[in-house]
Order: sequence, then structure tokens, then C-alpha cells
Amino acid sequence: MSEEKWQTSITEIGPGKIRVRGYDIVEMMDKLSFAQAIFLILRGELPDEKQARMMEAILVSSIDHGATPPSVLGARTVMSGGNSLNAAVAGGVLVIGDTHGGAIEQSARIIQELALKEGSVEDLAAQLVADMRAAKKRMPGFGHRLHKTDPRTVKLFEIAATLDYSGRHTELARAIEAELEKASGRRLPINVDGAIAAVISDMGFDWRLGKGFFMISRVPGLIAHTYEEMTTQRPMRQLGNRNFEYTGPEARTID
Amino acid sequence: MSEEKWQTSITEIGPGKIRVRGYDIVEMMDKLSFAQAIFLILRGELPDEKQARMMEAILVSSIDHGATPPSVLGARTVMSGGNSLNAAVAGGVLVIGDTHGGAIEQSARIIQELALKEGSVEDLAAQLVADMRAAKKRMPGFGHRLHKTDPRTVKLFEIAATLDYSGRHTELARAIEAELEKASGRRLPINVDGAIAAVISDMGFDWRLGKGFFMISRVPGLIAHTYEEMTTQRPMRQLGNRNFEYTGPEARTID
Amino acid sequence: MSEEKWQTSITEIGPGKIRVRGYDIVEMMDKLSFAQAIFLILRGELPDEKQARMMEAILVSSIDHGATPPSVLGARTVMSGGNSLNAAVAGGVLVIGDTHGGAIEQSARIIQELALKEGSVEDLAAQLVADMRAAKKRMPGFGHRLHKTDPRTVKLFEIAATLDYSGRHTELARAIEAELEKASGRRLPINVDGAIAAVISDMGFDWRLGKGFFMISRVPGLIAHTYEEMTTQRPMRQLGNRNFEYTGPEARTID
Amino acid sequence: MSEEKWQTSITEIGPGKIRVRGYDIVEMMDKLSFAQAIFLILRGELPDEKQARMMEAILVSSIDHGATPPSVLGARTVMSGGNSLNAAVAGGVLVIGDTHGGAIEQSARIIQELALKEGSVEDLAAQLVADMRAAKKRMPGFGHRLHKTDPRTVKLFEIAATLDYSGRHTELARAIEAELEKASGRRLPINVDGAIAAVISDMGFDWRLGKGFFMISRVPGLIAHTYEEMTTQRPMRQLGNRNFEYTGPEARTID
Repeated sequence: MSEEKWQTSITEIGPGKIRVRGYDIVEMMDKLSFAQAIFLILRGELPDEKQARMMEAILVSSIDHGATPPSVLGARTVMSGGNSLNAAVAGGVLVIGDTHGGAIEQSARIIQELALKEGSVEDLAAQLVADMRAAKKRMPGFGHRLHKTDPRTVKLFEIAATLDYSGRHTELARAIEAELEKASGRRLPINVDGAIAAVISDMGFDWRLGKGFFMISRVPGLIAHTYEEMTTQRPMRQLGNRNFEYTGPEARTID
Repeated sequence: MSEEKWQTSITEIGPGKIRVRGYDIVEMMDKLSFAQAIFLILRGELPDEKQARMMEAILVSSIDHGATPPSVLGARTVMSGGNSLNAAVAGGVLVIGDTHGGAIEQSARIIQELALKEGSVEDLAAQLVADMRAAKKRMPGFGHRLHKTDPRTVKLFEIAATLDYSGRHTELARAIEAELEKASGRRLPINVDGAIAAVISDMGFDWRLGKGFFMISRVPGLIAHTYEEMTTQRPMRQLGNRNFEYTGPEARTID
Repeated sequence: MSEEKWQTSITEIGPGKIRVRGYDIVEMMDKLSFAQAIFLILRGELPDEKQARMMEAILVSSIDHGATPPSVLGARTVMSGGNSLNAAVAGGVLVIGDTHGGAIEQSARIIQELALKEGSVEDLAAQLVADMRAAKKRMPGFGHRLHKTDPRTVKLFEIAATLDYSGRHTELARAIEAELEKASGRRLPINVDGAIAAVISDMGFDWRLGKGFFMISRVPGLIAHTYEEMTTQRPMRQLGNRNFEYTGPEARTID
Repeated sequence: MSEEKWQTSITEIGPGKIRVRGYDIVEMMDKLSFAQAIFLILRGELPDEKQARMMEAILVSSIDHGATPPSVLGARTVMSGGNSLNAAVAGGVLVIGDTHGGAIEQSARIIQELALKEGSVEDLAAQLVADMRAAKKRMPGFGHRLHKTDPRTVKLFEIAATLDYSGRHTELARAIEAELEKASGRRLPINVDGAIAAVISDMGFDWRLGKGFFMISRVPGLIAHTYEEMTTQRPMRQLGNRNFEYTGPEARTID
């Protein structure tokens, strides 16, 4: 008896043929940027110009955050034990969980579910903040232990505004920020995870892909750290994510 | 006594400040594509226009190869066991080993070591092929079980040529291809791994980063597969990387 | 400023000294079986004779279930991509999620929470089954796609009974089994995950350690499969967890 | 055309039937300790009494080494990022590489290859040490950064001697130890990895299973650490493998 086949609608291959969502990989190599190709494979359709611009900015925004994130410690620890580059990167990706990068999907879920409800963004935000405070829950995607105002959030929202891209989800995020401040008496600004959550929600992405954006963006950073560990540190050293100093280039501009 | 600090030169952070290789993340979000930022974080310097163009094409070229690669099976299997998106992606990245994606670093190592030697590319290639045949070793980066001519190779080399980017490493790869055919009597053309190896070698990247290019390029594909598994398949199904059918869009063009 | 220290109460080490939960590793090597040492490290105290006997049986029960479980496929897939033994075992462990092995912790959680409530086991079980049916939820730890009666369950409960070890949790599991049959009209017997859940609950283990028992028991099986893959299969073969045949020893008895 | 089947000789399953290497799992639960079952699944045959005794001691010996090993840091880091118990254990297992636990397989390989050669153990050891010093290589399995004399080595060899189990591989390890001291002028005693390597070699295990013994032994320790992290530490804390203090039970004896 023949086994039943399962379906996949991502990429079709055959001798000399690779088509991603119907598009020939060769034509893609000619005409698409990597970020555009990422949009295509995740979404099934090509991005328009604005979506492409947002993708580039989102993916650049989270490419690295220095040596402190636990995913960097995870990747460096695997390398330090004497393992391959891919095992170390897998070790870093494993760390990207509910409390590290997970805020994108958590926050996107909340605002996507909220956006479906009727009412003004102000009323919906006020109700949400009241409910979460009653349940003693933290709102994911707001506040940052290092950045009082997250510069990546400012820039992401600025680009979105320039493109006339901000929609109900971003407005909801803003309203939640205002409500959190009203309720707590202190600013708890949208961080980069919350900003990405708002923007990808306005772009129409399913919240369940939230952590995917973080992983795609951060893997190059994890590889840079793993490679640095491999080429500059001795194996089995005393590891930690605080006892380091930055010795790279001074501040400079792209011009 | 205070513990000695270890050094890192990738990213400097402080309150309201994130600088990758010296460049402000905010300026990067404004001015760099994701592929340019990847070049910067791996290499330490900004790419010029040609390098940026090559990066986009390299990263697009390996974004996915359908449901057959074992890394896709690994990622889907972790998801099917009832796990998180990041655990599944880590499971896929774990599979990217010596025999899957590893040809980039193996091939880049061989041609980078060869390129340092004196002699014509033809003589060096002939010697290499003779040595490998004597040792009964396969030359990594050549031949493909599905593609007689790998269309991605053709396009990558075409773009490199247009940019006047081909150098000694690409010439060596070409000469090895010719020698392999001469020695074996059949074509064993450069595959996409071998082509990437040649191009990144001409761009000056360390071969030890070879698998890194594959991982960065393929992670979006792994996420697309994992998301498809999560949203369309039931858990604990009978898994395999052959018994599937493509049900996505028909062939179409970007125009 | 000195950093604050974090606390651990598992193992104390110093030059020539390794003490697990206070016991010298050398004395442990002399006097404890591996299963007894596992009990000690998980629980903090030495097992009595009955607990030791139960541990051996629990850990033997799930050591392997052939080539079909997805964790085996995950481990073999990582090996097939050309990776190290530990990367392959990690790949297998990654698969052990909510729908594969996770039933131990899910089931243990339910019966531990239920056991705290007042009432007869029959009433508690009836209420639980009614609630789960109303919520259209499956009861984890009951039913098996292959075994109509799981022989491991029968033996585990038999050993527990012989030791006079069965308590309220096992009684609850039994009562749930009876209620499920009453409610659905067909037998949905306790499987090995449910049996382990019941027994470790009667032994006083936190349900959050449930998946830990499965992992400790199954890792030797995963290593056997990975080693077999490494030594008998060619890399990058067509993988799957159905298209195999058993070619090992015929049925035999221990004497 | 039907797909070709691949072979496996580990475990045969069918409705109501689970046979490991031919033995019924139910009979195994009745008659075998966990360590005996591990021997069976790795080796294909039941251990005799001496082999069973050695297995217990080997597996107990490496069950944990406190909070300093990088595999513990890897597992805790994954948990700290907000992930599942199995993802954290996988993260720990990933770290067990060439420089952490890998000495078992490296050392076993060297002495197994050496043992096949003709000559006295003294001559073979002298030649090996001379060769390794000429190649500026470290002999894996000798020396320990904390233990001047590794108490686990002493006990393992004592048990092996009592069982009259020491063979050519253990003698070789001893001779290498003597040669290393002669050549370097300081004691570089066999550590627990080297001792396990010698003993499993005398027991007839393939060196490629070396890391497997370490993983089986250490997974319970990794689970204990992960569970402690989950239940006593807050997520995303400042991680490291040095800044801790032991707060568990005082030294005590098994009696």
C-alpha cells in the first residue's frame, strides 16, 4: 500500500529547478534583496516597496545587542566546550525563549487579539492594562533594563510613519504605553520587541512568527560571537555574560 | 581580587546606545540593508557596493531547497514532538553538519590553502585532484544529486563576473571542475556550496565562516517549514523527507 | 564591587572532593547503583529500598521503543547530516516535547493537583473526566496508538503493588481509566507515561520533573540509535521513521 | 516502486510487544537494573556480574561535578531564557564537546589503537608520549585543573582491580601516566575521563561510544541543575559558572 503524501507549499524542486513560492531562485538572486526573499518565504507573496523597506529595518534592528544576552552566552558556551559552529549557533537559538526574544510573539498576540475587538484604541488599551494589573501580569514588549528609551523603537516607528505604514496595531501599542504610564506613574516605553510586534502586526504577519523575526535577525550576531569565541578565546574558559570589555572600533558614522 | 575581563569587539552597548562595529544601530537601520549589516557584523567593516550586491545574491541563493534536506526534517521533527519554534529551528540548525551545508567551509578551506601556493591555477588544481584521488577523497562542493548543472552556481558566477569580482579562488574552483572531469571522464560541476565557497574566498572571508553563510541563508527557510508544520500538520505524524507533494503556487515571474 | 553570589545545593566540589547532596562520590561509587544515585541527585536524599527498586523499573521501562519515536528520527537526522554524537543526542532530546514524552509531566500535574482535593478518588476522577470532555481535551497518559494494553504499565503497577507502594495518585489514575471507559464506551488504558506519572507522584516527585525521568531513561536508547546510524548507515540517506525492518536478535529470555 | 527498507537491530516493537536486543521489556523491568539495561542496549548482550558492577560505578562517577562545568552553564542559560526542560537539557548536552567530556573518546581511541600494536605497554607508552610531545599535543584524559589526584580514578581502578578486570588498556593508561611524569618532571595523573576510557576499553566498548557514557551519566546532573534553575532562580539573571556558593547539605555518609 502506498503511503499518503503530506503537502508543502513552500519550495518546489526538480533537476535544475528551484522555485520558492513559485518564483525561480535564479530570478530571485537577480532581483530580490535577502530581506525581500525572507518576506516572500515567510509570507508566500513578494513584498511591495514599503514592506521591503520595513523588513530591512526590522531585521537590521535586532542583529546584535553585545555580549550580555543569554543567547550569546549559550552559543559561546557550546563553542567553549569544543563543538562545531552549527552546534554553537543551535545552542544560542535554543536560549531564545519566553523571556529572551519571546516578547515579540507574546506582544504581537495580545495586540492582534485586541485589534479584532470593537472600540477605540484608548478604551481597548485601558481595559487591557487594567486586566493585566488585576492579574499581576507584566505586559510583554514594554520596558528595557538598559534603555530608558529604546532607540530602535523610535527609529522603527519613524520609518513606519514615513512610509505611512502605521496602523491599528501600532496605535494600540502606543495607547498601551500611555496607559501603562498613567497606571503606574512611570514611563514603561515600548522596547524593540514591542515595536517589532506592532509593525509586523500592521504588516499582517501571524503573531506565531514573532520569534522567527528575532531568530532571523539575531543569527548573524550569534555567528559573529561564536566566531570570535573560536578565534580569540581559549576553550573551557570561565564564562559569563558580564565580565567583559568592548575593545572594538570607536564610534563612527556611515556617511 | 577582581576577575580578569575578556574582550569582545563586536557590539558596544550602553543606555540608549547600541553600536555594531562602531556604527550606531539607528544609523544602520536608516542606511543599511540586512545583507549589508550581516557583512558588517561578520567582517568588521562596511561592504562596498559590489560586496553588498554579492552578499544579497549569496544569501538569497540558499534560502530554501524544499522539504528534502535533512535540516528541514530535523526542524519539522522537533516541532512534531510538541516544541517551541526556537527549539525546532535549533533542531534544524543542528543538522547542518559535515555532509549538509558543510561543503562550503570544507571547499573554501581547500581553495584558500591552495590559493596561497605558488603556481598556475591549472597546475594547482591538477595536483589537488590527483592527491584527492590517490587518497580516495571526494572533493567537497562539486556534484549534486539532483541538479546536473546547479542553476544557482551559474547565476552566482555570472553576478561575480559582471561585478568584475572573480579572482584566484573562483579560477581555482573552475580549474578543479575541469580537472575532475578530465580525471573521471564525467562532469562533476561546482554546486552552490562550492560556488559560495569560491565567491566568499574571493571576498576575503575566512573559510571557518563558511557554514555561517549557509546558516544565515537557510534559517528563514527552516522557519517557513517549521511554521508550516505547526499550522498545517498534526503532531506526531509519520515523518520523512520524501513522501510529500508540492501544493504551492505555480511557476510565476517577478517581472 | 563584588557581584552577589547565587546559590546551588546539588554538588560541592573542591580539590580531591566531590560531594553530591553531601555524599562523597567515592562512597557513592562503592555503595549506590546508578538508579539510586539518580534518585539522590533529583531528590536530595537517598532512596530507601522500595524507592530504589521502583527507580530501576521506571528507568528500564522507557529505555527504548524502537525506530518509530520522533526523538530517534531527530537524533538520526542530526547524525546523518554529519555531526557529533552529542549534537545528535541533543537533537533527539529536543524532540521530547509536549506530544512525545510530555505526557508524564502533564498527567502527573493533573493527578497531583487532583490528589490535593477532598473527595473519593472515584468522584474526583468522574469530575475530571467530565470537565475534560466538556473542554474537548484529551487526558494525557491514557491510550497508545500501538499497545492496546501497555505491558510496561502492567509491570510497573505490579511492582508498585508488590512493594505496597501504590497510593492515592495510582488510585486516581486507575479511577480515571475506569471513568474514561465509562464515558467513552471503549477502553483507553493507562500507558507507560501515565503509569510513570502515577508512580513518581506516589513517590513524592514534583510533576515538573516528569519529562526528566523520560529523558534519563531514553538517552541510552538515543545513543544506541545514533551509534547504529553512525556505524551502519551512509550519511544523507533518505530518512524516515517507518521504512525500516528489525534485523536484531530473535526473542530470547534472560535465563 | 516500494522504497528500500533500512535495518535496525536495537528494539523490536509490535502490539503489546517491546523487545530490546531480543529481551522482553517486561522481563527486563523485573530482572535488570538500569545500568544493566544500558549495557544491554549499547552492547547488544547482557552484562555478566562484573561488567554490571563496573557499569554502575562508571555511571555514578560522572553524575555531576557541581556548577562549574560549561554543560551546566549551557543548560541553565537555556532555562533562564524561558524554555522547556528538554530544550535546556539539550543545551547542556550540546556543550559536551571535544574539550568537555570528549576526553573519554579521544583517550579511548588512542589506547585502543595502541593496544593493537605489538610490544610491551612500557615501550608503547614511551613511544606515544614521545610522539605527542614532538607534535606538541596534550594527552587527553590526564591531568585535572582542580583535582591533583582524581578520587574517582582511584576508586574506578580499585573496583576494576577487585573484580580482576584490569587489562591491557588500563595497563597502558598507567604506563602513559608514568611516562608523562618521567618526560615532564611533574605528575599528570589519569583523570576520571581517562579512567573511564581505560575501563570501557578493557570491557570491549568501541571508543566512539566514549562520549555516550559521559552523556548517560551526566544527564541526571544536568536535569537536577535545570530543575534548580527553574525553581529557585529568576529568569534572565546574570549567569556565570563561578559566582556561586554551595548551600546544600553538609558532608554525610551513606552508612
